Amino acid sequence: MAAKTAITPTRNDDYPEWYQQVVKAADMAENSVVRGCMVIKPWGYALWENMQRVLDRKFKATGHVNAYFPLLIPLSFLEKEATHVEGFAKECAVVTHHRLEAKPGGGLQPAGELDEPFIIRPTSETIIGASYAKWVQSYRDLPILINQWANVMRWEMRTRLFLRTTEFLWQEGHTVHATAAEAVEETRRMLDIYADFAEHYMAMPVIKGEKTPDERFPGAVDTYTIESMMQDRKALQSGTSHFLGQNFAAASGIKFLNKEGVEETAWTTSWGVSTRLIGGLIMTHSDDDGLVLPPRLAPWHAVILPIYRNDDERETVLAFCRALKAELSEQMYAGQELQVQIDDRDLRGGEKAWQHIKKGVPLRLEIGPRDVASGSICVLRRDQDVKAKTFTPRAELIAGITKTLDEMQDNLLAKAKAHREAHTKKIDTYAEFVAFFTAKNEQKPEIHGGFALAHWSEGDDVLAKLKELKVTARCIPLDGPKEAGTCIFSGRPSQQRVIFAKSY
Amino acid sequence: MAAKTAITPTRNDDYPEWYQQVVKAADMAENSVVRGCMVIKPWGYALWENMQRVLDRKFKATGHVNAYFPLLIPLSFLEKEATHVEGFAKECAVVTHHRLEAKPGGGLQPAGELDEPFIIRPTSETIIGASYAKWVQSYRDLPILINQWANVMRWEMRTRLFLRTTEFLWQEGHTVHATAAEAVEETRRMLDIYADFAEHYMAMPVIKGEKTPDERFPGAVDTYTIESMMQDRKALQSGTSHFLGQNFAAASGIKFLNKEGVEETAWTTSWGVSTRLIGGLIMTHSDDDGLVLPPRLAPWHAVILPIYRNDDERETVLAFCRALKAELSEQMYAGQELQVQIDDRDLRGGEKAWQHIKKGVPLRLEIGPRDVASGSICVLRRDQDVKAKTFTPRAELIAGITKTLDEMQDNLLAKAKAHREAHTKKIDTYAEFVAFFTAKNEQKPEIHGGFALAHWSEGDDVLAKLKELKVTARCIPLDGPKEAGTCIFSGRPSQQRVIFAKSY
Repeated sequence: MAAKTAITPTRNDDYPEWYQQVVKAADMAENSVVRGCMVIKPWGYALWENMQRVLDRKFKATGHVNAYFPLLIPLSFLEKEATHVEGFAKECAVVTHHRLEAKPGGGLQPAGELDEPFIIRPTSETIIGASYAKWVQSYRDLPILINQWANVMRWEMRTRLFLRTTEFLWQEGHTVHATAAEAVEETRRMLDIYADFAEHYMAMPVIKGEKTPDERFPGAVDTYTIESMMQDRKALQSGTSHFLGQNFAAASGIKFLNKEGVEETAWTTSWGVSTRLIGGLIMTHSDDDGLVLPPRLAPWHAVILPIYRNDDERETVLAFCRALKAELSEQMYAGQELQVQIDDRDLRGGEKAWQHIKKGVPLRLEIGPRDVASGSICVLRRDQDVKAKTFTPRAELIAGITKTLDEMQDNLLAKAKAHREAHTKKIDTYAEFVAFFTAKNEQKPEIHGGFALAHWSEGDDVLAKLKELKVTARCIPLDGPKEAGTCIFSGRPSQQRVIFAKSY
Repeated sequence: MAAKTAITPTRNDDYPEWYQQVVKAADMAENSVVRGCMVIKPWGYALWENMQRVLDRKFKATGHVNAYFPLLIPLSFLEKEATHVEGFAKECAVVTHHRLEAKPGGGLQPAGELDEPFIIRPTSETIIGASYAKWVQSYRDLPILINQWANVMRWEMRTRLFLRTTEFLWQEGHTVHATAAEAVEETRRMLDIYADFAEHYMAMPVIKGEKTPDERFPGAVDTYTIESMMQDRKALQSGTSHFLGQNFAAASGIKFLNKEGVEETAWTTSWGVSTRLIGGLIMTHSDDDGLVLPPRLAPWHAVILPIYRNDDERETVLAFCRALKAELSEQMYAGQELQVQIDDRDLRGGEKAWQHIKKGVPLRLEIGPRDVASGSICVLRRDQDVKAKTFTPRAELIAGITKTLDEMQDNLLAKAKAHREAHTKKIDTYAEFVAFFTAKNEQKPEIHGGFALAHWSEGDDVLAKLKELKVTARCIPLDGPKEAGTCIFSGRPSQQRVIFAKSY
């Protein structure tokens, strides 16, 4: 019989349901009464705050500043870029009235119909473009390098906490440049920042690549993406950076006089990551006992669990815990003070410990009267067996804690990389491709396949075959070898292998 | 003839227009194409980020955590608290459809009508209450101490940048307690935090007080406020903290089992400050040359302006500037690294200096070849005459800069306090009250009056007289003497003087 786990079902039994249960057990978020919208609870939001802090610093270090643009977009603005509006028309929340009035028979109804409906921003290219058109006159006004932290709304039909919700939080960078080359450089720079953040903070390995034409952002010339593999071997598009060419600049009228005094249309980019990253983080590291957090983003790095049987012991133990917490909290880790909390709630020890395991707190420090006497601390690491204790002298713990956390961080990244490598396969025939993406077990259709590296070509015939298998081209890897070959779907020539996967 | 000022008109000539011009000259915000919504530009947003950082720390230091709740509120939720919905019905943005479809004849129109309309949150008591009702079961679950940073929307008819906009950014704290006493304590604690922030960071003196019944938040039992006086002597309600009693808890069903196992209805509070504070900050300190920023919140503390005539000089001067910047930036000020920038743009020196004056940068450091040679720096302070230079040896500047900034901060607060005191008057007759609030000069109706401390009583007759004068009771001061008297409007007995003013 398998060992009992804190999360039921396990990953192997029912991966999608395991995910929901991990989110619930860690108290990160829940569905709200508003269809498809989530409530991000304090533990989930604290993780988002840490992500924001790190990303925001990286944006600022590369010359970007923050600003804020309106939530509402006039319908006519969205219509300016044809591909763009087509991409978003089916998922727009529309504001049509600006007040409420008494309804005959009781209650209230919308009143004050607007001359022109507004859309709650699904993304802000068009409304920000309207401002940029006013701000940019001369080449001296360029580049514009602005980011916005905001909520956006896309009326999704099938939603899942963090991964796909009607409302989500994100950042959207919007930049304007004098030349195509500069805009492309910006697009790639931000992709690199996302990849660096994913690997070094989320401990989530990613593949940087270019989207195939059918997977581009509506209105973009090129969309770059970072793709990561979840534990069920599906891909998660974790961040995108778009080279918009002159499409949106032309639609919004962003023009400038160049050094020669000649008017030119500008070049723009946009790039974003969202609370979806939290879903990716959960699915990359968590196990059958709940959430596992990469230490560099964990809201708490360590929790101290005092153990005592009476008031006398309580005083001694708590005094020791408080002093330990104070000393640990003086240290810096991942750009902020080490976050240590004492959990002295009146709860059974086992129940309390399991709460922190399920929440993914990296280190648990158990301290009882004997530990106080011996000056050693019982340390339990979330990346190891839940019962594996090591007793560490106080001074050693204090001196080594950030090294331990970094070691855990590195382990998580290495483990995720090994998982991805184990399930990435070069595939050279269509039959092999079909077999790779066909579940071996009808009872557990979720966990199979992985990333297939296969030769490919553009064409509706290719897309149709992929659609049938519910597989998509995730990206043309930027770092992949530029080896030519034959498209396994059509027999047409191929310049390079593409990564295919089932995806979120 | 008066000296030429950077802002036209001056405060004295046309205060409201002066305000708009200060915002524009400092490049802080502008009106958007979306009626009543503003674009917060990078300089304005950086100020908001600093405010957020300081406030967020204070909230967390008092045990609060952040979370995020949905943007949309079902109409039926808003209807649950009768006074509440009445207060907001006239200014609700209503979402009625969830997609767009092709319109006969071209273009798009709303489609997919929702069964129940949603309101874009004007405030979140009802939607957050729905979550709290699920989260709270037992007295052990209390208190709940949560804050949310979010955008909200109130469809205002007359808007003004920062002070009153259809969409604005704010934080809203929502807490739940087991007893009325605890909830009142929380309400007052947060009011104190707001007052402390206003005085010690914004350098904006405030009066803490209780709102009179007609000025309460819709649905609150008690509303506490911080009121500040602008340079035109009008009051600005700068932050509010509401004791909601059991009104919202009863409407949302927030109940708990007490220690005796008996079900009780909980007690709630809510409290918020918004981007309106930025308007208050501008109107408190700025002068006829533009924005003046309190150093503790300034996005940049100092700007270095290199001056040179040729490439040789340029290299020498810039090397000196960079080294100075590096050394200054190592220091901490107001909880973050000292923010120093070098402005080496190719612009006339005068024009460049004036840009920073209009943006309110506290210190300008002018450095030319002679200063490099002598090792002294030309320092210009924004709180002094724009041309008042002092030459300070490099080492002295570095050692004393944070002291100088604090001195400027203190000066701003002292000046604002003196202004308020000069225009606050005890008034004991209705005739005197009318005279106080009647403009002496028809051409400049804005700048007159101030805060009147007068005896008062509840009653429609009193409200009618106030309405005629366009004056409102701002608050019953918490720190005021509890001296009884006679209402100057009705002759009825009064327990205490109330502050009256014209207001934003």
